[in-house]
Amino acid sequence: MIDGQPEVNPSPSTGLKTGAAWVDGRIIPISKASIPINDWGLIHSDITYDVVPVWEGAFFRFELYLARFFRSMAALRLNPGIDQAGVANALHDLVAATGLQKAYVAMVATRGVNRVPGSRDPRDCHNRFFAWCVPYIHVIALDIADTGAQVHIASSVCRISPNSVDPRIKNYHWGDFTKGLFEAKALGAETVILLDADGHVTEGPGFNVFAVKDKRLVTPERGVLHGISRQTVIEIAADLGLEVEIRDLPVSEFLQSDEVFITTSGGGVAPITRVDDHIFSNDAPGELTLALHRAYFEWAARPENRTPITYPD
Amino acid sequence: MIDGQPEVNPSPSTGLKTGAAWVDGRIIPISKASIPINDWGLIHSDITYDVVPVWEGAFFRFELYLARFFRSMAALRLNPGIDQAGVANALHDLVAATGLQKAYVAMVATRGVNRVPGSRDPRDCHNRFFAWCVPYIHVIALDIADTGAQVHIASSVCRISPNSVDPRIKNYHWGDFTKGLFEAKALGAETVILLDADGHVTEGPGFNVFAVKDKRLVTPERGVLHGISRQTVIEIAADLGLEVEIRDLPVSEFLQSDEVFITTSGGGVAPITRVDDHIFSNDAPGELTLALHRAYFEWAARPENRTPITYPD
Repeated sequence: MIDGQPEVNPSPSTGLKTGAAWVDGRIIPISKASIPINDWGLIHSDITYDVVPVWEGAFFRFELYLARFFRSMAALRLNPGIDQAGVANALHDLVAATGLQKAYVAMVATRGVNRVPGSRDPRDCHNRFFAWCVPYIHVIALDIADTGAQVHIASSVCRISPNSVDPRIKNYHWGDFTKGLFEAKALGAETVILLDADGHVTEGPGFNVFAVKDKRLVTPERGVLHGISRQTVIEIAADLGLEVEIRDLPVSEFLQSDEVFITTSGGGVAPITRVDDHIFSNDAPGELTLALHRAYFEWAARPENRTPITYPD
Repeated sequence: MIDGQPEVNPSPSTGLKTGAAWVDGRIIPISKASIPINDWGLIHSDITYDVVPVWEGAFFRFELYLARFFRSMAALRLNPGIDQAGVANALHDLVAATGLQKAYVAMVATRGVNRVPGSRDPRDCHNRFFAWCVPYIHVIALDIADTGAQVHIASSVCRISPNSVDPRIKNYHWGDFTKGLFEAKALGAETVILLDADGHVTEGPGFNVFAVKDKRLVTPERGVLHGISRQTVIEIAADLGLEVEIRDLPVSEFLQSDEVFITTSGGGVAPITRVDDHIFSNDAPGELTLALHRAYFEWAARPENRTPITYPD
């Protein structure tokens, strides 16, 4: 509970420190948390989720993540019978029970198991909510982010079109990302960026993409998640008096940028110094990228962006 | 095992008749079978599967389904450490243990849980195989198939492009289908057919589509699963001296057909008599559709298409 003592696991258990799950009101080690093999979340990827970072003992911009999760559920007509305060309490209790000060916290809603034998009608399913958390994940490893990461632009696969699956509803349709990741890893790149069918930059597995040219930021509008870290950077840029263009970003323009970075709830602002054989900002994190990176963590420390967790003594 | 006695559950258990799973060599009620909530099969839909029908105590065209499953796994670089004979034995033991004479049998391979904390690299995952079966599922309910089903062509969503996710590798990226299904159900239709971005007919959730015009069959080539029931109908048509065109099928041409039907491992050949406000073959199953429907079940009874199951006494 946000306003009181956690009801479950009053003292942080070492068994939960490596990962825990909230399932039907119980908090258990993540290794013991499972879903039925015939849940439509698995057998039709009929599922949505969101991930809120916990940083220095507080949720970052908690209300924004919760609101997006509820928008995603509504768009998919998922109703697991828990309201926003209920999810907030579940996530708070979960993180408090692990004792983790920095965590990656996932809230998940699945279509569930179909209650009518043989039914192929999603309306016959019993929707479910659960949550889990693990120690904070950096999408780009910290030591790599310090010097700038190398990414690859996938050549064998396009981003799934928003006319098929809306990327603004967080989803696990990652077949395109995974194919691209295998391509990237084979080339020694850290991660992958996908283009759409028209050759515009979209996003990568778990992050949005920004380009900097002549002190102006450009980030794609269509065919991408409207990430909360992306939004935070857009707000920070406005604060710093920087121009931001939210529009289609052709790959040719992208490769002519002065600086490139990605935004993610798993690391904030992470510099990219190499995209295939293109080298940016003298192979080191760019000046503006570093300024935004620092500002992001300053924002994360502001009281209005923090929902502190009450850990058991 | 195909060539001997099942090692597990020597007599069919009533607890398994409504559904069972093969997990790590054990056969358990499906209600007890689960996967970890952080398996990439769930959290990235990084998973493939296949479904072979059991009809009158035998697998139908078992080798074709098994071969496709192994092709799908290879394409996704999944290797759960079981060979084709191992999967065949697992599925045989599973169905035998349930006693089911007509069953829907799923074989599944997932990327698994990532063994390296925080890793976003699919190569760090421990791939897994499991299987499950339930009593035979008719994609179109039998009584509806008798008189002909009503289907809807989705207007709000396109089929995921093969440039993003290859539909020939059986996958659970069903967000487009599920959105279309909600549309269809709201209109009282049984199921949904999706178009591609160019307005060509593709497929529906769990089935391929055929049109009949002037005694010639047309079925899409691109952007669809190359279904084994589809293939069987193509072979039957050749046998019956019918012409089959495998090519793009514009929706305008589709709606001008004489007859329309779908093919699926869950029901063989099922007649469609209504597509939105278009009525086909006088609102009754077409002559050619019915001939193919009968021929399909004759084929299913041929010894060369059957792999009989040895049930315990």
